[in-house]
Amino acid sequence: MSSQQHDAVSDDPAALRVNGERLWQNLMEMAAIGATDKGGNSRLTLSPEDSAGRRKFIADCQQLGMTVTSDAIGNLFCRYAGTDSRADAVVMGSHLDTQPKGGRFDGVYGVLAALEVIRTFSDAGIRPKRSVEIAVWTNEEGARFTPAMMGSAVFAGIMPLAEALERQDSDGISVERALKQEQWAGESPFGRPFDAYFEAHIEQGPVLEASQRTIGVVTGGQAIRWLDITVEGHSAHAGTTPMASRRDALLAVAAMAAELERVAARFAPEGMLTIGELTIASPSRNTIPGSITLSLDLRHPDDEVLARFDSECRLALAAVAEGRGVQVTVKQHWLSAATPFDSDCVDRVDSAARMLGYIHQRIISGAGHDAIHIAKHCPTTMIFIPCAGGISHNEAESIEPDHAEQGANVLLQAVWGRANR
Amino acid sequence: MSSQQHDAVSDDPAALRVNGERLWQNLMEMAAIGATDKGGNSRLTLSPEDSAGRRKFIADCQQLGMTVTSDAIGNLFCRYAGTDSRADAVVMGSHLDTQPKGGRFDGVYGVLAALEVIRTFSDAGIRPKRSVEIAVWTNEEGARFTPAMMGSAVFAGIMPLAEALERQDSDGISVERALKQEQWAGESPFGRPFDAYFEAHIEQGPVLEASQRTIGVVTGGQAIRWLDITVEGHSAHAGTTPMASRRDALLAVAAMAAELERVAARFAPEGMLTIGELTIASPSRNTIPGSITLSLDLRHPDDEVLARFDSECRLALAAVAEGRGVQVTVKQHWLSAATPFDSDCVDRVDSAARMLGYIHQRIISGAGHDAIHIAKHCPTTMIFIPCAGGISHNEAESIEPDHAEQGANVLLQAVWGRANR
Repeated sequence: MSSQQHDAVSDDPAALRVNGERLWQNLMEMAAIGATDKGGNSRLTLSPEDSAGRRKFIADCQQLGMTVTSDAIGNLFCRYAGTDSRADAVVMGSHLDTQPKGGRFDGVYGVLAALEVIRTFSDAGIRPKRSVEIAVWTNEEGARFTPAMMGSAVFAGIMPLAEALERQDSDGISVERALKQEQWAGESPFGRPFDAYFEAHIEQGPVLEASQRTIGVVTGGQAIRWLDITVEGHSAHAGTTPMASRRDALLAVAAMAAELERVAARFAPEGMLTIGELTIASPSRNTIPGSITLSLDLRHPDDEVLARFDSECRLALAAVAEGRGVQVTVKQHWLSAATPFDSDCVDRVDSAARMLGYIHQRIISGAGHDAIHIAKHCPTTMIFIPCAGGISHNEAESIEPDHAEQGANVLLQAVWGRANR
Repeated sequence: MSSQQHDAVSDDPAALRVNGERLWQNLMEMAAIGATDKGGNSRLTLSPEDSAGRRKFIADCQQLGMTVTSDAIGNLFCRYAGTDSRADAVVMGSHLDTQPKGGRFDGVYGVLAALEVIRTFSDAGIRPKRSVEIAVWTNEEGARFTPAMMGSAVFAGIMPLAEALERQDSDGISVERALKQEQWAGESPFGRPFDAYFEAHIEQGPVLEASQRTIGVVTGGQAIRWLDITVEGHSAHAGTTPMASRRDALLAVAAMAAELERVAARFAPEGMLTIGELTIASPSRNTIPGSITLSLDLRHPDDEVLARFDSECRLALAAVAEGRGVQVTVKQHWLSAATPFDSDCVDRVDSAARMLGYIHQRIISGAGHDAIHIAKHCPTTMIFIPCAGGISHNEAESIEPDHAEQGANVLLQAVWGRANR
């Protein structure tokens, strides 16, 4: 960490640097709230632990003179006033809730990097033209209430508030009741204009680590297609049915998976294919599987290429089915179009990383993030930093303090530039 | 059906023929007890329906002057006395219990074909030298209490009585309690000597139907090996993990299944291979499977060949695992040696089919049967007749009356010959 840099407060904002040690200490303080035995965090959305985390964050913001509001789904907005109070704010943010056995950085890093940016402005005694806000989105994880990214979806008009409020956790407690219990619902209007939104986040994948780069300049979110596949063969006795007269759904699915893998190779490296679920109907050790359902997750950054990828998968499935005398049906379960991020925002992140001399690369966001929803509302982008082994949603989640500092410096420069345009 | 034949009662026992119409009528009467909506049968072992079926059968036997005993596991023995009361009896039989939604012929056919044989002896006024018995084994199906083939296992000393009596159904009712409720336990000793055992049964497979033969001369039971396989890759996010850096357990399993299918082809047509169960640990549509367990059922009529088949499967699994950077472990779950049937008994069935002019073939029993246990106790064989589409354990189970008659005629001739040796 280079704590010297921030001591040299300068009139030149390009020389401004965050305090990496202070950022790390703040991350560790937040990690103490809902800490788990194995070094992770458990702050399920709208739980007492989540509220404790939010209260600590709000107290830190108020010390900097920021004003705090919330909306009816409990999204928090902490505002550092700019010199032009009528201009739309530039917003940073992410989430403070975690998986039941989550890590210390997923979401939290983006919120606390944003806080460190404001602290750095405050220490330097400077204010940008536009106000700068930090958003803490409610229920990004989707672990207690589905769907994930609920708060940003409601804010951006993607999900109706009433529908979100009705969702219940496994104990039958609704989002509405949890919001009342924890007292997070406020009156800030949904969908008020933002000038731009910047979200810093751990990569949650292995790409930056493998390429030894510390900053990912995120160009957008992948298009995703989820397919439901059913393969119908003929269930029969494993001991009495000669191999030649079988219509074994399992062996057919295995042959299909091998073909799908070949199709995916033609769309490499950007195309991704995953069979995450596979269920044999009435499975029994000595029964030839007659019916199998499986899921297929297909991804590509380009909508049109993904459509072609999908078609080629369906052709491959049909060819194997015909060759093996089984029936295959494919239904689209869900489709998410690609989300290209705003080119001005992306370029500001890229320029900041270059100016700061950090090793960076352009990258696609493979996971869902609040930024994917907010991109439908305003110019948006993200900044990734590496995480060890690409591991996330796991107590073993880990990042390097230097990378955390670098990501926050990129965030600071990108936001400062945008907030003064 | 050829009912004329049996009217011509002759001094030559080789001219004796069963009454096919009577046999069919008796099958239909039994099928009315515990009949299901879709034309099947539900007589779970030691249920009131099972007892009603047994009582009808006993009444029919008593009308023929047969004596009825049972043993402590509820196996029934109905005896048609021979002229030499000290000679060990020749035993026919099978079971009257069914699957919860079973067919009308699985087991029942063997019991009622045996009854028709005795009726034919009785009509002709003849008695063989040895007594001939009909055994009705308790809980062949294993649907209410595990394991299957319980009664014959206890009789043959393969399973201790005390262990069988303790087994409970899903309502917590033990075999012991069910036997008391339905009053089937008696004092006939386990393991008393049999001269031989003949079991007629539907094939429960498609071989005879496909080859258009009506009699299967069963030469024995297959050897079976059940293996438990675990494949460990690396679980990761479907959206953030490049294809090239994945260790996808599902795609590894698919490649393994394809290789296993190639190994099985080298042991065709007698070698059989089935993956009946496959479970992804913590399956999720957007998570690359990290750990998968699956079952492997391997069969061959020859113990030594099966051991080689097993070895080649393990080599194939290890090769795929190494190529894909996943771990594979293989454990033997269960092993059942091949059961070659007695050559004298097999030859008697073969000769009878030839003498009767029925199209027949030698065949291996792929399913478990009481005869597989009794073969450890005395010279044993089975007689198969075709069932439509090889379908069994299903309400749609179906056979041809002509085939039922032919199987009973083969049983009669084989048993008559053996009982007079």
